[in-house]
Amino acid sequence: MEVEQVFHMNGGNDDVSYAKNSTIQNLILAMTKRVRQRAVMDAYKSTSFPKIMSIADLGCSSGPNTLLVASDAIDAVELVCKELNQKALPELQILLNDLPGNDFNGLISSLQDFQRNHRCFISVVPGSFYGRLFPSQSLHFIHSSTCLHWLSQVPPELQNRDNNVKRNKGNIYISKTSPPFVLEAYSNQFQSDFSLFLKCRAEEIVKGGCMVLTLMARKGEHPSIEGSYLQWELLAQALMDMASQGLAEMEKIDSFNIPFYTATSEEVENAIKREGSFAINSIQIFDVGWGEARDVCAHTKVEEKASTAQIVAKTLRAALDSLLVSHFGAEIIDELFQRYSDLMEGYFSKYVKGGLTNINVCVQKIK
Amino acid sequence: MEVEQVFHMNGGNDDVSYAKNSTIQNLILAMTKRVRQRAVMDAYKSTSFPKIMSIADLGCSSGPNTLLVASDAIDAVELVCKELNQKALPELQILLNDLPGNDFNGLISSLQDFQRNHRCFISVVPGSFYGRLFPSQSLHFIHSSTCLHWLSQVPPELQNRDNNVKRNKGNIYISKTSPPFVLEAYSNQFQSDFSLFLKCRAEEIVKGGCMVLTLMARKGEHPSIEGSYLQWELLAQALMDMASQGLAEMEKIDSFNIPFYTATSEEVENAIKREGSFAINSIQIFDVGWGEARDVCAHTKVEEKASTAQIVAKTLRAALDSLLVSHFGAEIIDELFQRYSDLMEGYFSKYVKGGLTNINVCVQKIK
Repeated sequence: MEVEQVFHMNGGNDDVSYAKNSTIQNLILAMTKRVRQRAVMDAYKSTSFPKIMSIADLGCSSGPNTLLVASDAIDAVELVCKELNQKALPELQILLNDLPGNDFNGLISSLQDFQRNHRCFISVVPGSFYGRLFPSQSLHFIHSSTCLHWLSQVPPELQNRDNNVKRNKGNIYISKTSPPFVLEAYSNQFQSDFSLFLKCRAEEIVKGGCMVLTLMARKGEHPSIEGSYLQWELLAQALMDMASQGLAEMEKIDSFNIPFYTATSEEVENAIKREGSFAINSIQIFDVGWGEARDVCAHTKVEEKASTAQIVAKTLRAALDSLLVSHFGAEIIDELFQRYSDLMEGYFSKYVKGGLTNINVCVQKIK
Repeated sequence: MEVEQVFHMNGGNDDVSYAKNSTIQNLILAMTKRVRQRAVMDAYKSTSFPKIMSIADLGCSSGPNTLLVASDAIDAVELVCKELNQKALPELQILLNDLPGNDFNGLISSLQDFQRNHRCFISVVPGSFYGRLFPSQSLHFIHSSTCLHWLSQVPPELQNRDNNVKRNKGNIYISKTSPPFVLEAYSNQFQSDFSLFLKCRAEEIVKGGCMVLTLMARKGEHPSIEGSYLQWELLAQALMDMASQGLAEMEKIDSFNIPFYTATSEEVENAIKREGSFAINSIQIFDVGWGEARDVCAHTKVEEKASTAQIVAKTLRAALDSLLVSHFGAEIIDELFQRYSDLMEGYFSKYVKGGLTNINVCVQKIK
């Protein structure tokens, strides 16, 4: 499976779309808004008030979250200009990036309304952020939220098709029953991806420019004891249940691994220090609960009657459909997510709390 | 009808797509290749060999023509560097623009292959080129082929909904039977649009940068005696035939006018001189025959058995569907183009020749 070619959030605006099922990502954006706006202000000042300020949002997806970062950034620049009594605003260039399979037509159809109310130039830049996307030293502020936990590929050790090689049998992520090499393989893949990400961005951003990254994370040593671990464990269980009833192939489950990794704060920090181009201005870990996402959905009447479990299942489906369809085929998906939702209901009936841990880090280009 | 919101070439890759029906536009691109490459070379030299060279293609559409300009431009820059024994190539940034309704998903899915073979950064910039699209002085070379004959709107005089006002009755463009104010209204709209286009581009391009524009044109004083006139005359006839049989509403035909204008060489030249930011390096009028388009189609086996008339009808349909559907509804389109194709057959059986006149102008930013 070529993640870069295959992977994308569900497009459009229907029941299984990312646009309709991205409340938790929206909450995360709200919780990081102040850091983001402060960083845009710092970037504008420390790059000597450029006449054209270029702002990139990596992994922008489509739907109601897509233009929030742009809108916050524009507000922040206007605020600095007001503070400094600087009448001429810079020209703002917003660069929206996502993988080629993203629903760019949907995104583009929403731009006109936005541009009527916000003075800026918007471009769309398709491609993987695990590679160069922009010309050298052309950006002043870079942002990415809820993306960098997605790896560029399933760790190669787990893709080995040699049947003698041990597999991550019955699992689709790092689990309590995974052999130790599985955690190591995932961790190595994250290190390699995240380092490449930093190296590319270091080439693209000017000195003094800032970058704010938010990604799903873990607090403890082993991913299988907390947080997002649960979502994969129950998804694996739903798949295994289907296999036991002849509705899915066990071989396919054994060879499926999610290209996803929750790093620790130390892993993120060490990678940034090792790369060496950025100083860390701030780093924090924060939780966001699925219950809060449910409250927001109910409040906005998007999903008045949906249970937390249903919201988790739909959120995960909007993100995972492309990967699952590519590996298992489209025919098992409805049934899989029905079972997944039921398993989640069981979980939430026992444990009222449940949520995601995130890292938010703000860095500045120092050389 | 809001042209900017509605208008786009047919997306996708099916029988009525622009991708499958843009051979004549491809021929025009081939005929202007040398001017284009020369201009890219001149732009690179006269902007002091920038480290990042930004190239915009306005009205890029989707399909096999879309990346030709980018590919020619990259070749041209590489050639200059070789000539000058300059080892470090500049970073090339390609900016692809079209109206928001364009099939950007289709375009984006073709970028990965292109970028594997061509070192460049590609962005997509949706929006009307009758307005600002890029930050100030951020471009080195601008290109647009077979687009600028499309107006930003139907001339307002012809959109007046007051029934006492004279209309362009029974016509959809400037015709022999059109009242004189029709030509004047179209000519004014072109002047206003083209001047705005030049003003915006003058702000976006750096001094010394070049711009190559190719647009459909006319040689004589009155558009109704030659060239592309025929295509609208026969389309109006097909519509009138349908109205006479109760298959289309006469009122709708009377209120439909194509947002299109073929300028004379003098009109283009005068507008450039009046705007004042660009010097004209070269200007030429050239014809391209529909017969040649047919030969290419037959040669490439795209349309082995298609007649010239069929090719004209399909080319026009790929460009016009969005406007026609918005005004008349989707239900008349198949029948309309069948009749149009038949009328074209009649024409080509009498006159073997038929084609389009184009202007190609290369200008350079002088201040």
